[in-house]
Amino acid sequence: MDLKQIAKDTANVLSSYLTFQAVRTVLNQLRETDLPRFYWFNDFSTRESLQNGEAYLERLMQAQPDLALRIMTVRQHLAEEITEFLPEMVQTGIQHANIEHRKRHLEKITQMSSEELTAGVERTDGDDPELE
Amino acid sequence: MDLKQIAKDTANVLSSYLTFQAVRTVLNQLRETDLPRFYWFNDFSTRESLQNGEAYLERLMQAQPDLALRIMTVRQHLAEEITEFLPEMVQTGIQHANIEHRKRHLEKITQMSSEELTAGVERTDGDDPELE
Repeated sequence: MDLKQIAKDTANVLSSYLTFQAVRTVLNQLRETDLPRFYWFNDFSTRESLQNGEAYLERLMQAQPDLALRIMTVRQHLAEEITEFLPEMVQTGIQHANIEHRKRHLEKITQMSSEELTAGVERTDGDDPELE
Repeated sequence: MDLKQIAKDTANVLSSYLTFQAVRTVLNQLRETDLPRFYWFNDFSTRESLQNGEAYLERLMQAQPDLALRIMTVRQHLAEEITEFLPEMVQTGIQHANIEHRKRHLEKITQMSSEELTAGVERTDGDDPELE
């Protein structure tokens, strides 16, 4: 497991996602302040892929430099404001989700075993055949 | 700008991405230790969307519980090992990328202005028409 490479890839994905969130934020602002520009920018962002945030900004810089500069300011602000909370949020989130998955799986196994016992070790396909 | 909601959404995207990286890691391990299982799991993960990590795990838990438990262990390990480095990596990454975009933009403006001056304020379409 190449942890260094995974960390690098994850940071890139995160940067592109924050660029996407910056675009959403600026779109919401334009919708309320400058409708023609909102339509232009919405159209541009539907056409140009946001999968790679840097390539997207490169093209936006050529088309509308001031919008590109605005997106860059907003994404930097987002990075400064929210990334510090992510490690704790993600670790706790994954821990809780894992516990939930394990719990549900245990319940299912236990339920199946008792059903199998009542049915004389007869195989059942559905989760709750009594409801059918 | 709803920073709290953006942080929540970003944490969810990050969790799903770490689940995807856990799947990749386990696939690489299976390729070297259990080829028939590698093919089954590869097929499953191509068919089932990984956009939503929890829904994916839910379905994997029904099909192959031990693989699901393994993915859960690996993604928790990844979260513990790499998320703490992400805030600094993402902030520095975005800062550097922003500087690069601004630099290239300034170079382009300066270059265009001097070209316009030489050409007697004549509009040019290409970046470097002298090379054509």
